[in-house]
Amino acid sequence: MITGDYTDLFIEHFPFWEHLSQSEKELLSSNTKTANYKKGDILHGGNEDCVGVIIVKKGQLRAYMLSDEGKEITLYRLYKDDVCIMSASCVYDAITFDVFVEAVEDCEILIISSKIFDKLSRQNIYVEAFSYKLATTRFSDVMWTMQQILFMSFDKRLAIFLLDEANKTGLDEIKLTHEQIAKLMGSAREVVTRMLKYFADEKIVNVSRGVIKITDKNKLRALI
Amino acid sequence: MITGDYTDLFIEHFPFWEHLSQSEKELLSSNTKTANYKKGDILHGGNEDCVGVIIVKKGQLRAYMLSDEGKEITLYRLYKDDVCIMSASCVYDAITFDVFVEAVEDCEILIISSKIFDKLSRQNIYVEAFSYKLATTRFSDVMWTMQQILFMSFDKRLAIFLLDEANKTGLDEIKLTHEQIAKLMGSAREVVTRMLKYFADEKIVNVSRGVIKITDKNKLRALI
Repeated sequence: MITGDYTDLFIEHFPFWEHLSQSEKELLSSNTKTANYKKGDILHGGNEDCVGVIIVKKGQLRAYMLSDEGKEITLYRLYKDDVCIMSASCVYDAITFDVFVEAVEDCEILIISSKIFDKLSRQNIYVEAFSYKLATTRFSDVMWTMQQILFMSFDKRLAIFLLDEANKTGLDEIKLTHEQIAKLMGSAREVVTRMLKYFADEKIVNVSRGVIKITDKNKLRALI
Repeated sequence: MITGDYTDLFIEHFPFWEHLSQSEKELLSSNTKTANYKKGDILHGGNEDCVGVIIVKKGQLRAYMLSDEGKEITLYRLYKDDVCIMSASCVYDAITFDVFVEAVEDCEILIISSKIFDKLSRQNIYVEAFSYKLATTRFSDVMWTMQQILFMSFDKRLAIFLLDEANKTGLDEIKLTHEQIAKLMGSAREVVTRMLKYFADEKIVNVSRGVIKITDKNKLRALI
């Protein structure tokens, strides 16, 4: 782990940067470090760990929750330039929900100390607003996923639909627009698009203009 | 619906009040109204409706989500003095998740126009921070509930535990502390306490010091 000059990255990712005093800027910089994780490493796991606020410089991370029986559900993924505050949840009273974060590929990330970010958030209203807006956006996405998967079983229903279509034609390619699928399933286009993106991230399908290609039929069957 | 002088209520519920300019204060006041709802009224339902930011003056509201098959899950309840921003979600890009809000009892509430609250939130960083902090807190609670109920089936497991205990003793009172229940179930005390509170809000049990009284056995059985 090394420290360095992160000013450019901070300017790019933190809209509150211009509202920090010189000493706040220095505090942030001196409590930031670069870390490398190997594919499969767990960065953050449950209540016990509190890695800090993350900026992804390279690679991909995956946040998921774990049931009592060890079942996983992917909540969101972090790619280059994504900022994540859920991994600093321990210092935010407003966040009592826990996720696990693992490196899906080899990763290079910036880590800002939770304690320092929290301190800045308490003394600077711009940092506070940024933090909670970021958390709200993430929560909203996660709730959508949980609702569709756990409550509506929409992942299961879409899996059944895609397998049925593939069986009909004998091909692994489904030539329907998201709009058409939504109509056939009695759902909304936006819901179909987001769930297909979820499937694509999970490497179950490939989505391109007007064509959905099933790339992992076993994984798709496992959803049913 | 009437308008009036809400200054005292604003001071009490909005920590950003002192950071508003005189014209912002007037804008907020003149776009606030009192509304009464009867038990069973739906205040807010899905994407189409956007009632506004709510302050509860009297009564109780319940927020829930609705599955495709009409199944309901209670996400949170609002009591006197609670503030709710999810009911103004339409104007917040960061919130894409929809809930229904109904009056559980006859209610008197203050409603602040979504559009005006959004306008203030865009021009005043203190309003913005307040809004997102409120949303984060609510989301965090809701995620906890969804995780426990939909993913861990902890409501079901606790229902089975309570019914088993009641059967053992032949009484509808279970004399165990939350700590003891947690140990027996292999869970954490905090999880047991929150779920018992959820049951109590749903009028399934009564919780007092060291005693859990089952008040609606049918509802408890229906969870299994």
